[in-house]
Amino acid sequence: MNAPVNFDNLEVGFDVPALPGMDEADIQTPCLILDLDALERNIKKMGDYARAHGMRHRAHGKMHKSVDVLKLQEKLGGAIGVCCQKVSEAEVFARGGIKDILVSNQVRDPQKIDRLARMPKLGCRVIVCVDDVANIADLSAGAQKHGTTLDIFVEIDCGAGRCGVRTTEEVVAIAKAADAAEGLNFLGIQAYQGAMQHIDSYEDRKAKLDAAIAQVKDAVEGLKAEGLEPELVSGGGTGSYYFESNSGVYNELQCGSYAFMDADYGRILDENGKRIDKGEWENAMFILTSVMSHAKPDKAICDAGLKAQSVDSGLPFIYGRDDVEYIKCSDEHGVISDPNGVLKVNEKLRLVSGHCDPTCNVHDWYVGVRNGKVETVWPVSARGKAY
Amino acid sequence: MNAPVNFDNLEVGFDVPALPGMDEADIQTPCLILDLDALERNIKKMGDYARAHGMRHRAHGKMHKSVDVLKLQEKLGGAIGVCCQKVSEAEVFARGGIKDILVSNQVRDPQKIDRLARMPKLGCRVIVCVDDVANIADLSAGAQKHGTTLDIFVEIDCGAGRCGVRTTEEVVAIAKAADAAEGLNFLGIQAYQGAMQHIDSYEDRKAKLDAAIAQVKDAVEGLKAEGLEPELVSGGGTGSYYFESNSGVYNELQCGSYAFMDADYGRILDENGKRIDKGEWENAMFILTSVMSHAKPDKAICDAGLKAQSVDSGLPFIYGRDDVEYIKCSDEHGVISDPNGVLKVNEKLRLVSGHCDPTCNVHDWYVGVRNGKVETVWPVSARGKAY
Repeated sequence: MNAPVNFDNLEVGFDVPALPGMDEADIQTPCLILDLDALERNIKKMGDYARAHGMRHRAHGKMHKSVDVLKLQEKLGGAIGVCCQKVSEAEVFARGGIKDILVSNQVRDPQKIDRLARMPKLGCRVIVCVDDVANIADLSAGAQKHGTTLDIFVEIDCGAGRCGVRTTEEVVAIAKAADAAEGLNFLGIQAYQGAMQHIDSYEDRKAKLDAAIAQVKDAVEGLKAEGLEPELVSGGGTGSYYFESNSGVYNELQCGSYAFMDADYGRILDENGKRIDKGEWENAMFILTSVMSHAKPDKAICDAGLKAQSVDSGLPFIYGRDDVEYIKCSDEHGVISDPNGVLKVNEKLRLVSGHCDPTCNVHDWYVGVRNGKVETVWPVSARGKAY
Repeated sequence: MNAPVNFDNLEVGFDVPALPGMDEADIQTPCLILDLDALERNIKKMGDYARAHGMRHRAHGKMHKSVDVLKLQEKLGGAIGVCCQKVSEAEVFARGGIKDILVSNQVRDPQKIDRLARMPKLGCRVIVCVDDVANIADLSAGAQKHGTTLDIFVEIDCGAGRCGVRTTEEVVAIAKAADAAEGLNFLGIQAYQGAMQHIDSYEDRKAKLDAAIAQVKDAVEGLKAEGLEPELVSGGGTGSYYFESNSGVYNELQCGSYAFMDADYGRILDENGKRIDKGEWENAMFILTSVMSHAKPDKAICDAGLKAQSVDSGLPFIYGRDDVEYIKCSDEHGVISDPNGVLKVNEKLRLVSGHCDPTCNVHDWYVGVRNGKVETVWPVSARGKAY
């Protein structure tokens, strides 16, 4: 159950990038570091916001895949549990002692359904999303086999164009089926507008959310008319949580990236036209990298390339520096423009990743730093749990 | 030393995607599968080519990060050893029993130099690249500390614009310093033209390689004039190996992607204008994915997104299908255009990844299949070894 890591058998530079107590300067790169002060401030801030707005906050664990970070979100941010995307990921959180777990995704494979249905035996509530009435019988059979209950969210596609149903009719049909099925409990609605989270303009995001909220309201009304009022209406991300919080229909948030931040989220603008990484949230997670070649006077080569990050949402930026720029990426190298030749070999830089979720997924460890010292080294507990 | 995997303690769907002996249909997705017949044919073909052209083939282990695949390349393809990009990666191959290891990269960090210099004690030759004469003293001190010898390749930047020196003067200066340094042995030249590997046109690739070869020849002449004839001149990838093999100056190849192939390499054209994945090499590595939602009639959603692959070189294509197309990617989902609604939930598809190297790096296992059965399950031994 999330046993403490035994560092005695782990070699720095092979198994782990650092050990607790080390100087920050001795961390082996490339690796992920967490600015623990900034992380704690982000977590507290979101917790305060949710509390002030009467919202439950179910922190999105798929972003960080870390039981330790999730526990910090529970402790400092009042998070009520976790959502994540995969059954194997959910199992990591369940084994780690998290008590309220939503798989914010469809589970259709028979073996996955079996694992999911067994999971409540670990002592947690398990919720799963459904967008096809044909899924209900399989989930019900799984729950009955294990003598458990699975809670059901009907997933609405409110604009993301991925999973989820689009009409209130379909929502009601699935909810009814879940309500009637042995071993299942219709609990609520999943309605996460993922496609809009990264639109820069606040007004454009608001327009998308207004439409989504109207759609969800209609579904809730339809369910109420059938005596199936949803207990939970869940959704909302770092680019939208204030819309859901003020919607009068959602009562649960699912924010993830706010805790770490990344370059792509950082670019979106708040109500006042200000980047959200310049006030709303702090960059708390970095790829620490070292310069390893400077054979050309105007270019430094660093040790963080495609295997230390995902560049699907663009290249990283170098934190706190406007004199040098990360301009190119190959498997194990980053090319840094250094027109004045200021960087030295072995100099360390902090990169803000383009997209935190898939970047975290390529690392085994978070190195938590404070005041120049390594305070904690946390496993990326669910890294690679893609099943 | 590459101990056999103990599958007794591994749960399918949590720790591993499959077990040896299972039906292919029961593999848990998303995961990487290897078509063992195709893989073996690719490996034999490259081995035959290298032998016929009097070239050593040092297989690039950074692509697959697997001791098992490397051993197959030694056994079936006559590979003389491995090259890889990181010290921790090299340690995995050394511990796995590989005897000739090149770190085709610069090693500058003091702790990494110490690990590198210790590695020959595991019974392997260790070669490292140098592009800065200031590195020589540090490597020499490390080798002396451990009582070992490190072999040195001077790295030439022959067009990749990354690490490496550009002039024969610099090459000679570093070679001389290596030759004179205690614990070091000047062995040869690293000259890999990475930037051209993915240019589609054969003629355009040839032009880049002609320039690179001329540059390397000049360096070799310069070294000879100083009595420092290089024993090995190493380079060449899947998009260029025939140029290096016929250059009269290279004697060692470093191909990697030929073994698995990917969508980006597949697009490049051979001398006759034919895609290289339509004859020269076979697709042997796939991301196996399952359809998990089909709530919209014309779109199927599969379970392989950004955490199951890298999309830096474009989206994957669906192998053997022209009726459906992978058109969009988010963290855990792929959106598949299915205009005729032919796909069924739980149907499995084989994706050819855009770029194999960083895709392999997000998985823990290769599932080797033959005739519909899982024959082997190999760890991605050096996954995450980024230090």
